[in-house]
Amino acid sequence: MSNKLYILTEHDDVYRTLIQEKSLPQLDIVDDPTQANIVLGSPPMAQAQFEQFKQLEWLQAIYAGVDALCIKPLPERQYTLTNVKDIFGPQIAEYVLGYCIEHFRHFTLYHAQQQSKLWQPHLYQGLANKRMVILGCGSIASHLARTAKAFQLHTIGINSTGIPPKDSPFNDVFHISELHSALNQADIVVNTLPSTPETVEILNRNSLSQCQKALLFNVGRGSAINESDLVWAIENQYITHAYLDVFKQEPLDDDILWFHPKITVTPHIAALSFPYQVVEIFVENYQLWLDGYSLKFEVDLEKGY
Amino acid sequence: MSNKLYILTEHDDVYRTLIQEKSLPQLDIVDDPTQANIVLGSPPMAQAQFEQFKQLEWLQAIYAGVDALCIKPLPERQYTLTNVKDIFGPQIAEYVLGYCIEHFRHFTLYHAQQQSKLWQPHLYQGLANKRMVILGCGSIASHLARTAKAFQLHTIGINSTGIPPKDSPFNDVFHISELHSALNQADIVVNTLPSTPETVEILNRNSLSQCQKALLFNVGRGSAINESDLVWAIENQYITHAYLDVFKQEPLDDDILWFHPKITVTPHIAALSFPYQVVEIFVENYQLWLDGYSLKFEVDLEKGY
Repeated sequence: MSNKLYILTEHDDVYRTLIQEKSLPQLDIVDDPTQANIVLGSPPMAQAQFEQFKQLEWLQAIYAGVDALCIKPLPERQYTLTNVKDIFGPQIAEYVLGYCIEHFRHFTLYHAQQQSKLWQPHLYQGLANKRMVILGCGSIASHLARTAKAFQLHTIGINSTGIPPKDSPFNDVFHISELHSALNQADIVVNTLPSTPETVEILNRNSLSQCQKALLFNVGRGSAINESDLVWAIENQYITHAYLDVFKQEPLDDDILWFHPKITVTPHIAALSFPYQVVEIFVENYQLWLDGYSLKFEVDLEKGY
Repeated sequence: MSNKLYILTEHDDVYRTLIQEKSLPQLDIVDDPTQANIVLGSPPMAQAQFEQFKQLEWLQAIYAGVDALCIKPLPERQYTLTNVKDIFGPQIAEYVLGYCIEHFRHFTLYHAQQQSKLWQPHLYQGLANKRMVILGCGSIASHLARTAKAFQLHTIGINSTGIPPKDSPFNDVFHISELHSALNQADIVVNTLPSTPETVEILNRNSLSQCQKALLFNVGRGSAINESDLVWAIENQYITHAYLDVFKQEPLDDDILWFHPKITVTPHIAALSFPYQVVEIFVENYQLWLDGYSLKFEVDLEKGY
């Protein structure tokens, strides 16, 4: 009996070609979502037409963030949800560390000076020994911490257990109940948390006011930040500059965020899902599926990650 | 018998205070250069008044680059010249990798888009698996290679022996005679070489035309590049963008370099000599000096590094 795969992404043709090239056994790509027992899809797009997946057994998400599919109440249909991991860490590390260097090494200032032919060195402090507090200790956060170590940054991970992950690259791991004392010593704060009821607006006036002139990165989910509280925290110098890649509403429309001189807005590009990488994960999982094993990167629908 | 130290830098007061705080035995700081047997100084400043150092036995340079003191013919006076090492690697790594990320991750483009409220993601390739060719395999080059590894860059070091340094962090080490074939495969080229007769204009029309749309960094010495050949190489797309921190003439005056849209000019800030770090090296060397041992980071005046 063959498996029937329905593809639902913003680049269906690319995915179709990549998967066809793999010549996977017992797999047909179908155009009718009601026939599919397997879906490879974008979580928001899959959520929007979920009721059509009448035969769904396994949904492979093409993103890390699957919150769109974990909104309560969960659908009655029982299925396995998997996401993609391990491909975003390097991209997120480049984004965060690149902007940190841009900031601490005055790239923007030197660019402006060049326009007016001004030769004027400025003192600086490099990244060494600065403290980076990372909300989350998962695959992305761990890769970021490992890369940050190459710049002698001191990293503090925050999670819901206070227990370091396996082979922890963090200098310290704090329990989420210690968030305020972690933020209090941070030079750099990075949110990598998934969107769950516990993480919604975890960065608000109360927590942000623990910071002391920190840089703030949001590469997790837009819901983690109360955006008007962030603007307040910048204006009160708790936050020196914010780098926001994710927003409650995307594309971003809010003019206050778009045009704030101390906010850098990027259009959800800190880590892209490159189809060839997603397909590698799908192929590996499909083999496990055929062989009856449990799949990689299975999501707990109740927890939402 | 006490040692007499003469300080000759752009921040004499800072150095004087830092050294006084160390309460070094048998050391007087003197204001008369003719009395000093030890000089702590900037190489160009020391070179300019070298004939006054009538008692000189040891000169501790505050920079890595000591070419000003190695111009032939060498002075008749026999003395020990030491420079500073190991403090510049992290700064250079931040500079080079920061600008690499800025380039490959489109920071400038996203900044421009933000000004016009444009939400438009762009595909990119991260640093992983790109090839970085580093001219030099010394302390700075090695630290850069070690940090680049955290981004999965493939590093190729070039030196005058073709033999990897101890605990080599490079993926490959090429002999200088293989420079052209190294440049031919480079995504990123970084010059860290000292200024010697052999390295003058090593990057010229002939060598630069081996590159294929590479980024070029000069964090070594301005003399390594033939500047008009570089402009030619940019216009012919051998070089995509050049990041220049050092120049034949500083401060830079050449308008073609200052205002070229594909050249980033910085005012010799890729690595600063922070006085507290230089003083740590001086103190360690002074103890060796008192005890009669050979000093750290001794320069071969004939070779010039």
